[in-house]
Amino acid sequence: MGKGNINFKIIFRILGSLLFIESFFLLLSLIVSLFYNEGDTYSFLYTLIIAVSIGLISRIFTKNSSTNIGKREGFIIVSFVWIVFSFIGSLPFIFSGHIPGLTNAFFETISGFTTTGSSILNDIESLPHGLLFWRSIIQWMGGMGIIVLSLAILPILGIGGMQLFSAEVPGPVTDKLHPRVKETAKRLWLIYLLFTISETILLMIGGMNFFDALNHSFTTMATGGYSTKQESIAHWNSPFIHYVIILFMFIAGTNFSLAYFGLKLKFKKVFSNEEFRYYLGFTLIFALISTIVLYLNSDLSFERSFRDSSFQVVSLITTTGYATADYLQWIPFLIIFLFAVMFFGGSAGSTGGGIKIMRIVILLKNSIAEFKRLIHPQAIIPVRFNHNTVKSQIINNVLAFIVLYILIFVVGTIVMSALGLDFETAMGSVIATLGNIGPGIGDVGPAENFQDIPAVGKWFLSFLMLVGRLELFTVLILFSPAFWKK
Amino acid sequence: MGKGNINFKIIFRILGSLLFIESFFLLLSLIVSLFYNEGDTYSFLYTLIIAVSIGLISRIFTKNSSTNIGKREGFIIVSFVWIVFSFIGSLPFIFSGHIPGLTNAFFETISGFTTTGSSILNDIESLPHGLLFWRSIIQWMGGMGIIVLSLAILPILGIGGMQLFSAEVPGPVTDKLHPRVKETAKRLWLIYLLFTISETILLMIGGMNFFDALNHSFTTMATGGYSTKQESIAHWNSPFIHYVIILFMFIAGTNFSLAYFGLKLKFKKVFSNEEFRYYLGFTLIFALISTIVLYLNSDLSFERSFRDSSFQVVSLITTTGYATADYLQWIPFLIIFLFAVMFFGGSAGSTGGGIKIMRIVILLKNSIAEFKRLIHPQAIIPVRFNHNTVKSQIINNVLAFIVLYILIFVVGTIVMSALGLDFETAMGSVIATLGNIGPGIGDVGPAENFQDIPAVGKWFLSFLMLVGRLELFTVLILFSPAFWKK
Repeated sequence: MGKGNINFKIIFRILGSLLFIESFFLLLSLIVSLFYNEGDTYSFLYTLIIAVSIGLISRIFTKNSSTNIGKREGFIIVSFVWIVFSFIGSLPFIFSGHIPGLTNAFFETISGFTTTGSSILNDIESLPHGLLFWRSIIQWMGGMGIIVLSLAILPILGIGGMQLFSAEVPGPVTDKLHPRVKETAKRLWLIYLLFTISETILLMIGGMNFFDALNHSFTTMATGGYSTKQESIAHWNSPFIHYVIILFMFIAGTNFSLAYFGLKLKFKKVFSNEEFRYYLGFTLIFALISTIVLYLNSDLSFERSFRDSSFQVVSLITTTGYATADYLQWIPFLIIFLFAVMFFGGSAGSTGGGIKIMRIVILLKNSIAEFKRLIHPQAIIPVRFNHNTVKSQIINNVLAFIVLYILIFVVGTIVMSALGLDFETAMGSVIATLGNIGPGIGDVGPAENFQDIPAVGKWFLSFLMLVGRLELFTVLILFSPAFWKK
Repeated sequence: MGKGNINFKIIFRILGSLLFIESFFLLLSLIVSLFYNEGDTYSFLYTLIIAVSIGLISRIFTKNSSTNIGKREGFIIVSFVWIVFSFIGSLPFIFSGHIPGLTNAFFETISGFTTTGSSILNDIESLPHGLLFWRSIIQWMGGMGIIVLSLAILPILGIGGMQLFSAEVPGPVTDKLHPRVKETAKRLWLIYLLFTISETILLMIGGMNFFDALNHSFTTMATGGYSTKQESIAHWNSPFIHYVIILFMFIAGTNFSLAYFGLKLKFKKVFSNEEFRYYLGFTLIFALISTIVLYLNSDLSFERSFRDSSFQVVSLITTTGYATADYLQWIPFLIIFLFAVMFFGGSAGSTGGGIKIMRIVILLKNSIAEFKRLIHPQAIIPVRFNHNTVKSQIINNVLAFIVLYILIFVVGTIVMSALGLDFETAMGSVIATLGNIGPGIGDVGPAENFQDIPAVGKWFLSFLMLVGRLELFTVLILFSPAFWKK
């Protein structure tokens, strides 16, 4: 990797500079809080002053620093930006007194930035509008961050599945939107903004007020799942609203490069993408299975079974975490089925978390190839994805990722159970956070929250959110002694 | 693979011929039943006549058949011998009326042959001695079969981890005991017999009667876990007996080639084997963790905590399935901890089931290598095992095995929950059978049995036992259309 000492000055400078972005969104929230005037304005003002001050200090004190950014600096910046943003971002909750302790405030904030959506709040509606807005826009920021990271920055660091779409496997998606990171970021954000506006308008047509529509659009596009209502989307008993959100959750779980082509109406390009086809296929099949089972095992109408099933399946596969129904009240088969769906995750290059469709597909294809290799030991049986052969090195990386993911899930479950949680809650809390979903199973289901998790557990789950969000390796590599060697 | 038609005649001939081995053990059980004279003699006699008849028919009607055995014939024979043996082996239970239905009798018998040890019996002591003996010797036969399979036959078919020890990775263990399968088998069985006799003597010294000592030695060495008592080993409140069984369970979970060197007192050779060192290390660490946690969270003495913890850890890691304590009564952390241990399994080339230590070690080493590869993308970072580099093809195979194992576990859990089982019982029943362990968690814990599982579930779990026992691929390949193509 890099040679010589790690350039901490440039890390400090970049982290500080990025705080100006957070400050901009703090300012927006400040304006919202002024508009509603519900007593949270000063908490934003103080936080804004702190954020801007740190930003200025970081620039002044590192003026003459070398601009040499290596891969190691990249790893540190990418991991720490979420931590720094979350600490600063938790201040309005603490200052306003609405989430008094640092543990809870930090958990709520990093759960936002990582677009997880696990909440410790048990009375969301009691929050002033400013803080509600802040809570939603944190997720929107996180979603923006992850799109740029996964499509532009992580591939440079050699992380994430996206190397599959770059030099390794030339396919439709490698039509890079623009070679330069900044330009790419701008275009992606424009699409992100466009979808957010479209959803807001549609939700308002469905009967939501502007504030709720905007907030939910923020958290849909981020696959975050924070709602302005304690009941989540179940608060609105409108099929139209439910279907609109299903559609936009599905879009948010799509690779944003593809979404770009979709916007340009180049649907052939979208459907020729193999990951997208599997993503659509899995979603449809899972929704169908759930619909039939739910219909046969409940008093719900077929439309309601279909709507609730589709909503919950799409919400969980995209790792959004909204709910229109408490699936823990469904029959055990469906609970376990949805629990399995939680491991999937959205497409690579989307705001979704989890293992990701691309990896699941490569895993399945490689398993089939293993059988063929047994039958024809002399033949070379390649794994193909997007019309190209996947290098064995990449397959190894994908398999290692999945196994590491499961390993973290198992160890995490053991840790959480050691803190006194029962089996299902332990598993549920780990997959909900590691997969950046939000609600899980057990006592952290969609009708419950994370308030009662012990403090140590909250910090541990916060860590899992970050690990899951940054494709495991990005964060865990910082714990490797080899990383810190000169 | 093979060319032309599959030689079904030779398959029939070999399966029939192997029935003479089962007939020999049926004869032994017949003698035991005669000795105790408890009314089960005729059920053995009838079964014996059926088995010998089929054996003779298969030889007479295939006299002039081609002796051409290809790989495909090998796969079919290896899978079907367990099924045929289990059908024949279930007859004494059915004829005697002690296990009336075919479903239960077949489940109990294949659970024996696959050395799983999951039972549908809820009053074991009511069985006549002949049937108890048959139940135990079925496991002993299964253990014998698996040693020969994993050390001599599966490597030829390209299955199982053992190719790691053959041409691929020359290490201490490749000092093949003898090149020819028959000779190898004879020597391995001699060791197997020697250990069985030693354990019988030690258990008798500990106060067991000859019958119980012999039966438990059969099922220990097979890592099967069938007991002659409903309470399992908890029936004997003797520390000596518990420690003897811990020792022999551990031996049975060791690669039998290594056990051979151990018997010859070549301990240096044993300890230089990497899989053995990890096997010992994992066992010690897990037992230690469990001991401390159990001691701090119960009224048990330290010795009792240590003994119960060691017993349960060794019983589960070797996939034996005996119990001296109902671990489901322990604190949730220990239940989840032991549930995780169930995924490990014994060493390759032992009678133990599960994923196997070797694969877990390669998985962990490859995960570490992945981090190093990220830090030094240009360098070639090999995974080493037993002082040799593991080919990337083998790593891929190992990872594919583990992921497939987890996939089957997940799908199996969903299937069992669809049959109405609750989450923990569904997971417990699947890992207990797929891992060839015996008891699981939920309603199929060590103090319970599989009686209440629906019939379809029993057949499905029987299938999982076979799939797990034959290293997944051996059985699943038969479902591949490519396998049956000319």
